[in-house]
Amino acid sequence: MKNFKCIESKDNSLIKLISLLQASAKARKENGLFVLEGLRICKDAYENGIQFDKLIFTKTAYDKFAQEILKFADNSLENIQITDALFNKISDTKSPQGIIALVSFAKVKNSKLDKNGRYIALENVQDPSNLGAVCRTAEALGVSGVIVSSNGCDPFSPKALRASMGTALRLPIIELENFAESLHASGLKLYSCVVDANAQSIDSIKFEDGCVLIIGNEANGITDETKNISNQLITIPMKGNAESLNAAVAASIAMWEMMK
Amino acid sequence: MKNFKCIESKDNSLIKLISLLQASAKARKENGLFVLEGLRICKDAYENGIQFDKLIFTKTAYDKFAQEILKFADNSLENIQITDALFNKISDTKSPQGIIALVSFAKVKNSKLDKNGRYIALENVQDPSNLGAVCRTAEALGVSGVIVSSNGCDPFSPKALRASMGTALRLPIIELENFAESLHASGLKLYSCVVDANAQSIDSIKFEDGCVLIIGNEANGITDETKNISNQLITIPMKGNAESLNAAVAASIAMWEMMK
Repeated sequence: MKNFKCIESKDNSLIKLISLLQASAKARKENGLFVLEGLRICKDAYENGIQFDKLIFTKTAYDKFAQEILKFADNSLENIQITDALFNKISDTKSPQGIIALVSFAKVKNSKLDKNGRYIALENVQDPSNLGAVCRTAEALGVSGVIVSSNGCDPFSPKALRASMGTALRLPIIELENFAESLHASGLKLYSCVVDANAQSIDSIKFEDGCVLIIGNEANGITDETKNISNQLITIPMKGNAESLNAAVAASIAMWEMMK
Repeated sequence: MKNFKCIESKDNSLIKLISLLQASAKARKENGLFVLEGLRICKDAYENGIQFDKLIFTKTAYDKFAQEILKFADNSLENIQITDALFNKISDTKSPQGIIALVSFAKVKNSKLDKNGRYIALENVQDPSNLGAVCRTAEALGVSGVIVSSNGCDPFSPKALRASMGTALRLPIIELENFAESLHASGLKLYSCVVDANAQSIDSIKFEDGCVLIIGNEANGITDETKNISNQLITIPMKGNAESLNAAVAASIAMWEMMK
């Protein structure tokens, strides 16, 4: 085994930092870093040419995945070996694999909107599983990127990254501080998906390049501010007693209509 | 408060039975009973005219929801009050509300397939969240019912019921022991959704009454046996690097195309 820097103390500042980054979107923002945990997602990132700030792994993981860890290490600014006990403390999963990479947002974040793109935008969506599922579907259907509001859940939380199956690392993710204002200023055609039988049925819309489909919060839908700056209110017609579709399902059907 | 039968011992046979029903699909099948936990889903069932075999509640819940509990009690063959401590033992949730109803499958299961129906069928789908989400979307889009294979996850597990937002209680759920054989014998037109660029794109299909859309297992897709008895293999065309869509998302897009 190559000689790597070792950390054994739970009071080490890096160990404390990783625990914080796992748990808190605020800490991720303040430090400009997020966590990739597990072989699969680290491999996804590596294969997409994303450089690691730090690679953290256990000897147990090295014994099992030496080949991958050596490749990752060459792609990382710093490599640190830690004990299994310490890794269990910083892991976000039930069965830790012993591999974590820290990545700088600067390596993945993209804030430019393409004038000819076709985007999905999530306003204040709270469930990281929904956000991750939307990223996965967006990539599969060829959507240009996923726009999120800064008051929604964090696309780079461990749970959202897992649900996205790594697609959040490949797809442009654009976070907007002033959601409605910035969308309005983008010049893109804005379609707000609402639960309203009087809105235009989505299957009658002819989508053209340069548009954004907006999906609202799980409980409250799209804000009035965003509805007001939208070019059109559209809806997925429903039957039966269902009050609404799950946000990720509504987004998926809407993206399918936008992209086909 | 009315006088209800009380149970205080954790060794009581009903308490043991409920724990088993919460945890095991086998126990649910053997006893012909499943569990509704929480005010919302009990109310959904009540409003759909589903009779309860037993209603179990705590005094804490009664103090909060007396009106609802008295209504439910009139709709239940037996009513039992238990302690908070005991309820915590049988609850499947982190913050128990103190209300559980036991319902007989005979009150909700439906095994008849309508010759003119449009169904979604899940072959060996394993994730109860996916199954619940499919039920929710199926009801919203007006699908005739959800067909499941007996080797898939149980639509009446606590997790699947929660994800379905109660729709599994309103929608016909048809469980098939011999999935491919029974579908073949149904005479309905069978469309298997596969990940195969050579299969017919789903947006070119003209669906007619009397059909079934089949979605396969999350990891392995549809079995060869089921593909072989299908009238047509269809696909949701994908771009990008995504290997596949989430099963519930694929089912949702497919149901949307079938029903619109």
